[in-house]
Amino acid sequence: MKSEIIAIGSEMLTPFRQDTNSLYLTEKLNELGVTVAFKTIVGDRQRDLVSAVRTALGRADIVVLMGGLGPTEDDLTREAVAEALSLALRRDNDQAAALAVRAASWRIPMPQNNLKQAEVLEGAVLLPNLNGSAPGQWLDITYETYRKLLMLVPGPPNECRPLFDAECIPRLREILPPRHIVKRTLRAAMIPESQADELLAPIYAAYKDVETTILAHAGDIQLTLLCAKRNAAAAQARVDELSGRMEEVLEDWLYSTGGASSESLEQIVLYYLGLRQSTLAVAESCTGGMIAERVTRVPGSSRSFLGGAIVYSNDLKTTFAGIAPELIAEHGAVSREVAEAMAIGIRQATGATLGLAGTGIAGPSGGTEAKPGGLVYIALSDGQKTESVERSFRGGRDRIRQWATQQALDMIRRRLR
Amino acid sequence: MKSEIIAIGSEMLTPFRQDTNSLYLTEKLNELGVTVAFKTIVGDRQRDLVSAVRTALGRADIVVLMGGLGPTEDDLTREAVAEALSLALRRDNDQAAALAVRAASWRIPMPQNNLKQAEVLEGAVLLPNLNGSAPGQWLDITYETYRKLLMLVPGPPNECRPLFDAECIPRLREILPPRHIVKRTLRAAMIPESQADELLAPIYAAYKDVETTILAHAGDIQLTLLCAKRNAAAAQARVDELSGRMEEVLEDWLYSTGGASSESLEQIVLYYLGLRQSTLAVAESCTGGMIAERVTRVPGSSRSFLGGAIVYSNDLKTTFAGIAPELIAEHGAVSREVAEAMAIGIRQATGATLGLAGTGIAGPSGGTEAKPGGLVYIALSDGQKTESVERSFRGGRDRIRQWATQQALDMIRRRLR
Repeated sequence: MKSEIIAIGSEMLTPFRQDTNSLYLTEKLNELGVTVAFKTIVGDRQRDLVSAVRTALGRADIVVLMGGLGPTEDDLTREAVAEALSLALRRDNDQAAALAVRAASWRIPMPQNNLKQAEVLEGAVLLPNLNGSAPGQWLDITYETYRKLLMLVPGPPNECRPLFDAECIPRLREILPPRHIVKRTLRAAMIPESQADELLAPIYAAYKDVETTILAHAGDIQLTLLCAKRNAAAAQARVDELSGRMEEVLEDWLYSTGGASSESLEQIVLYYLGLRQSTLAVAESCTGGMIAERVTRVPGSSRSFLGGAIVYSNDLKTTFAGIAPELIAEHGAVSREVAEAMAIGIRQATGATLGLAGTGIAGPSGGTEAKPGGLVYIALSDGQKTESVERSFRGGRDRIRQWATQQALDMIRRRLR
Repeated sequence: MKSEIIAIGSEMLTPFRQDTNSLYLTEKLNELGVTVAFKTIVGDRQRDLVSAVRTALGRADIVVLMGGLGPTEDDLTREAVAEALSLALRRDNDQAAALAVRAASWRIPMPQNNLKQAEVLEGAVLLPNLNGSAPGQWLDITYETYRKLLMLVPGPPNECRPLFDAECIPRLREILPPRHIVKRTLRAAMIPESQADELLAPIYAAYKDVETTILAHAGDIQLTLLCAKRNAAAAQARVDELSGRMEEVLEDWLYSTGGASSESLEQIVLYYLGLRQSTLAVAESCTGGMIAERVTRVPGSSRSFLGGAIVYSNDLKTTFAGIAPELIAEHGAVSREVAEAMAIGIRQATGATLGLAGTGIAGPSGGTEAKPGGLVYIALSDGQKTESVERSFRGGRDRIRQWATQQALDMIRRRLR
């Protein structure tokens, strides 16, 4: 089955905004075995909308229309579908009453144009919207001798997604042939993308019935395996087999083999810290707080993360991490020696089990021939042993900082694993 | 003039990837006075591509096709346009020779399918691609009695954007009526979005010839004013007049009235710090490094930003910011008293001109009835005066931290302005 998603709203034809609901809907449609063959973005002009609806009906079996269901003059989706399919719009009295109750509960007089949201396409089923005033609509029709399914869903993500899940998916599931979906996500850290490709491509190429997607971002690789079959056990077996072969070649780059959802590297780090009853403190120079920011994104991180210091200036390296000024004078602030001393120093200053430190040149300026932009040292100390790595990252300032942060978190994972 | 942008590639019909080039192209087309009326995303199937090209030619004057110009079997844009318009494809010998030279310079034998990239549509002009092997193509044709402009541009952003700028824009400029564009961006911090709307809507509604876009994100509001006229001075006058009226009502919420580009709040803060020859240090609790991370995004921030401490645990509030444990015991770690003491303490510990501190409950857990999730205290001290604010932010953990960070940066701006 082929589908088309139409996102409606002139704001999505500006340089400033982009439709994001369609990514969510695509995932849900794919899980039902429905391919998304086209996505169209169209503005709030009835003529353009009618054209988009007709085009979609000519090339897709399932058409999802997002947006344009509100009460304003710009909300034209109902009118456009009515025109495209020569259907009448009638007022639904129950819906009109519900809108009046809603307005009363907000203690505002109901504006007359609100009633637009009670207009229903001939033959359509209204889909209740628990998070907004505009209901969705479901149309199961014959168009030029073909059966077509049309869904009108609201545009705001907090209305669109729950409504699609609660109202559209069960209806689609009843109509579409039964399928069982098995999904698994693997994540690996700090493996070069080209190397991952080289290792993995020959493996997954042999599993044509498992859809494999690879996403790479600054030292983080996410593999999604998805298999759909009539038989759930058969789908599970294929995913398990492919996953097993991938896990083998990814070796210790692999940090998460979660089920359908995936854990971030910072979640894994906090998991290991909890398991080992260890605490962490950081001393960040070039990453400027990015390591701590990533760790503290995780709710409950305060159980294992004490905090640390952003030692951007050399003086603060001394004040907070106890670095002797002579050490900096001798080796430079960006050096293995200073990184290791920072890890040892922040551990001592904070009483944490583990001290983590990073120093480097994020650029664009500040590099020299001997120490070019992108050079980063990361060090980790547990009081007994202090280890460090030297890395050269490429790219802009932000990218270098992201890579350095990923390297730092991965070092803790490898130590505690 | 109406245009349609077609993004080509099956990966953009998965839940994982999205076209982003079109935002860039939209900005450039708008500046030429061209509206983007439709965007279509289509996969690497020739039948679907032909359908998309024909649909676009039926409803737009200018059609930009992005992607599908490479050497592989999946790259079908040339073939699809040839089929849609019944045009022949012929091999361009110069281009074929250039591809051979390129392969030789990489010291690789040229794969035979590379020559696909030398296939040119009948009547098309080849557009050189300085960052990749696939050239673009420009077609100026008559389709069903109408003049249509078709551009084939490569998909990778680092090829698409420079090629569009260098090859397509000058050609469009020659054809389209001359227009002068004046653009200005205003940015304001910490004004509630609804209040901004209420203040600004009556003003910009009266300037129909100036396109106003409002983007809001966690305490940051960005207003873009764009006016296009045949007469440059007239466009400038309209933007100046509207901008002046907006600046008046935005009062001291306004932090940047930059020209065409806009400065971020952290850039403005660093600008003021430089101007006042002041230095900054931070003590972050609930923001966990986010304030420092934002400041250190700016290249050269080390001139004014010393660093600071992430005092996530209460012990570190004492170690790094000199907070007396009794103060925490009396008022709680999330309190105005502790925030102010942290600002004073971090200033003293670091020798910075300004000490900035934040403490709060980012959630989702940790809140109480007296101190609910979202409660944040931000304090700023310059040694003479210490001021603080109490705010209650709504939303999830990430959003509360973003608001708190914005509030913190805005406090510095207001102090130094």
